[in-house]
Amino acid sequence: MTDLTHLDATGAAHMVDVSAKTDTDRQAIASGRIAMSGDAAAAIAAGTMKKGDVLAVARVAGIMAAKKTSDLIPLCHPLPITKVSIDLVPDATGVTATATVRTRGQTGVEMEALTAVSVALLTIYDMGKAVDKAMTIGSIRLLEKTGGKSGDWRRDGESGPA
Amino acid sequence: MTDLTHLDATGAAHMVDVSAKTDTDRQAIASGRIAMSGDAAAAIAAGTMKKGDVLAVARVAGIMAAKKTSDLIPLCHPLPITKVSIDLVPDATGVTATATVRTRGQTGVEMEALTAVSVALLTIYDMGKAVDKAMTIGSIRLLEKTGGKSGDWRRDGESGPA
Amino acid sequence: MTDLTHLDATGAAHMVDVSAKTDTDRQAIASGRIAMSGDAAAAIAAGTMKKGDVLAVARVAGIMAAKKTSDLIPLCHPLPITKVSIDLVPDATGVTATATVRTRGQTGVEMEALTAVSVALLTIYDMGKAVDKAMTIGSIRLLEKTGGKSGDWRRDGESGPA
Amino acid sequence: MTDLTHLDATGAAHMVDVSAKTDTDRQAIASGRIAMSGDAAAAIAAGTMKKGDVLAVARVAGIMAAKKTSDLIPLCHPLPITKVSIDLVPDATGVTATATVRTRGQTGVEMEALTAVSVALLTIYDMGKAVDKAMTIGSIRLLEKTGGKSGDWRRDGESGPA
Amino acid sequence: MTDLTHLDATGAAHMVDVSAKTDTDRQAIASGRIAMSGDAAAAIAAGTMKKGDVLAVARVAGIMAAKKTSDLIPLCHPLPITKVSIDLVPDATGVTATATVRTRGQTGVEMEALTAVSVALLTIYDMGKAVDKAMTIGSIRLLEKTGGKSGDWRRDGESGPA
Amino acid sequence: MTDLTHLDATGAAHMVDVSAKTDTDRQAIASGRIAMSGDAAAAIAAGTMKKGDVLAVARVAGIMAAKKTSDLIPLCHPLPITKVSIDLVPDATGVTATATVRTRGQTGVEMEALTAVSVALLTIYDMGKAVDKAMTIGSIRLLEKTGGKSGDWRRDGESGPA
Repeated sequence: MTDLTHLDATGAAHMVDVSAKTDTDRQAIASGRIAMSGDAAAAIAAGTMKKGDVLAVARVAGIMAAKKTSDLIPLCHPLPITKVSIDLVPDATGVTATATVRTRGQTGVEMEALTAVSVALLTIYDMGKAVDKAMTIGSIRLLEKTGGKSGDWRRDGESGPA
Repeated sequence: MTDLTHLDATGAAHMVDVSAKTDTDRQAIASGRIAMSGDAAAAIAAGTMKKGDVLAVARVAGIMAAKKTSDLIPLCHPLPITKVSIDLVPDATGVTATATVRTRGQTGVEMEALTAVSVALLTIYDMGKAVDKAMTIGSIRLLEKTGGKSGDWRRDGESGPA
Repeated sequence: MTDLTHLDATGAAHMVDVSAKTDTDRQAIASGRIAMSGDAAAAIAAGTMKKGDVLAVARVAGIMAAKKTSDLIPLCHPLPITKVSIDLVPDATGVTATATVRTRGQTGVEMEALTAVSVALLTIYDMGKAVDKAMTIGSIRLLEKTGGKSGDWRRDGESGPA
Repeated sequence: MTDLTHLDATGAAHMVDVSAKTDTDRQAIASGRIAMSGDAAAAIAAGTMKKGDVLAVARVAGIMAAKKTSDLIPLCHPLPITKVSIDLVPDATGVTATATVRTRGQTGVEMEALTAVSVALLTIYDMGKAVDKAMTIGSIRLLEKTGGKSGDWRRDGESGPA
Repeated sequence: MTDLTHLDATGAAHMVDVSAKTDTDRQAIASGRIAMSGDAAAAIAAGTMKKGDVLAVARVAGIMAAKKTSDLIPLCHPLPITKVSIDLVPDATGVTATATVRTRGQTGVEMEALTAVSVALLTIYDMGKAVDKAMTIGSIRLLEKTGGKSGDWRRDGESGPA
Repeated sequence: MTDLTHLDATGAAHMVDVSAKTDTDRQAIASGRIAMSGDAAAAIAAGTMKKGDVLAVARVAGIMAAKKTSDLIPLCHPLPITKVSIDLVPDATGVTATATVRTRGQTGVEMEALTAVSVALLTIYDMGKAVDKAMTIGSIRLLEKTGGKSGDWRRDGESGPA
């Protein structure tokens, strides 16, 4: 059976030693989606159309969250992020978010990409909640990671909802 | 058509004025789930059985994230949280998280509960990602909120995945 | 001669005791300006015209900074901010920022308004610095404060640049 | 016409990719000034003379703010700062602040130096505001930057106030 | 046998519900000491004598840490602190720190006072470590707390070192 | 007489310039102890035995605090930590904490190890304070540091309490 690397032999949590790892260029892409009522989606669309800040606020929140990842996820290593971009695509029933994060470091940036997506979607929830409290965030997952000793990884096909 | 209260008439984002609202007791409950391979679920279960810290780490991460909500979500008001608890239930294909947050304040704690759930699940992803990178986080949603002028709200039935 | 309330009798810094003060509604308005070359101002205008995020990013940065004020200014009291709005007006030679902050608390929100203006303008510098490194930020000042025992205060006329 | 590098082709904000840049030694120097009444300047001077902490508090605030720059400025890259010093010179009508910041990294430290100056001056405002609410912060600007591919830059002569 | 209130019946950590508690004025005083070589103590004294910032830096660090307590201690409630002062007394073999913290809130400020003392002393260690790496921090303890339903508490006599 | 490197010639605090230092692998180990009543120690032991989160919460707090060290200690350089582990050993009269921190950087991680120990012990205080407010934290000290130009350092024998 597989073990969790974040626990030592006694089960105690620790931040895994990556001292011996080489600095390499690493990238991770993650995505997620917030599903909402037609009314909420229309409010988002209206906010966007009249040059409203709605997607910009979510994008900025996601970018800033990527930089806070090691402050949020207890066993995550701090990393000097070299790029973050967040793509937000609204449609008639929600918004899909995709985050791309890069670093040149000793560990990967999967958590940074997943955190950026999560916080961008939570921010959309916050802005839309007066219209629709039942919005649901899901399908938060890694799409691919490249760089690092463990090699590249890409999700097979499109995974279904959680 | 409904409008987004977080944008002013010109579409500019602002933190909504809640100065005139009364301090009342408020509570929000949110939940979410991380779906994973049997191997990853078994690793979580093993980590839990031998008194490992795996669920404790996720729980602490979620509680601390609730306190950082207004630092993460740009237009969210800071609130003096008076209670946070996070329930994590592992099973053969994943872990379900439920967060309960309370305050006595001028706005609700929906975002705090949703943020706590999201970060607890991201933390489980972080600890399990060496075993299974394809884990998916979803069904993050509000279950109920009570208190405040807009009254109580409860989700109708169990909503499907996002 | 007047004394600094933030130093005790021996000159040691302390966070002034406001325990005995009453919670009252308080508001502060501050403004500032970044002066830039015509090229930089044109780039800002172009970014704004094509629905670019440029002013939204600065606005979000200012709002979030208002919430971090007591974390930045050592002797500043933490406060539950109830409203922040930031008005950014670009013109041919720069951008003028005005921030309005409210709370119901034991001390005023002058520092929050001034910090919001400062960080919004620094963010514009950051976005424009590839075009013009010589941009200058100035005229950061309080316009008015209302509420609290010391009463209301309004700046006389328009003060010149610092 | 020039473009803003912090916006992509659609106008969306992103953290620019610096992955391909080389780590080099970089330095930035910025300055600014707070102008105040004679009474406030005298209070600062008195606080300084009797070994009071007044300038030390502002200096520490500026140094700590330099370390928080990427947390405050949304699209700013996190950097391992290797030196910060802040020079504060009080006179009869105010205080002039100059910050010097160094790093060995992939981007420059202009924003760190400007942020350090801004927060040091805001801290002086905070300590003096009981004496003089009309104090004005200005002339915040980059004096020079060295290192990095874009080469060295120095401000021509002394620029006037913003 | 006594139980830990921070664990629920299953042993899971939670932030205890204080919603039903009344806001009352509360104060806590804590102290601690860093013991050092004569050389290090002399360096501190010299830094202090020539108006150096050494004690001011530690004092500011302690005050700012008090404001971060709920961000550092996982199950600690966030509180609107209304006063912090830190007294630092250097002598021939070290420095003694005493912190006084006040709030008007639903829980006490013991943790804020203890955290302020700890971080002030760690800051002195940081500044003196080039002279003496063997410095030891100890005797960190609560001296008294007042306010709140559980009533006042004062330490009996002087407790010995930890 | 020795001088404090963190003060310049005029006594002003600054973050020491480490730009010229080489990145090397560095490690620091620190320890400390919280002494408590038999009742409190029994409550900790009971919380641990029934798989309670008590030590896990303290461990996570310490690990996260190590990552916040440069945000807490004003003149401390930010560092990309590559490993943190915290060992907590409860006995009949208290808990002993030992932290090991590694980095590959330009300065050492002594402060990170000492901060991790301090915050882990403060967290135990927080969880046990309903049982015993008189608990005392002490013996916080560096055990060894390795790496860096100044060479390795190990504490001679066991130092007594502070």
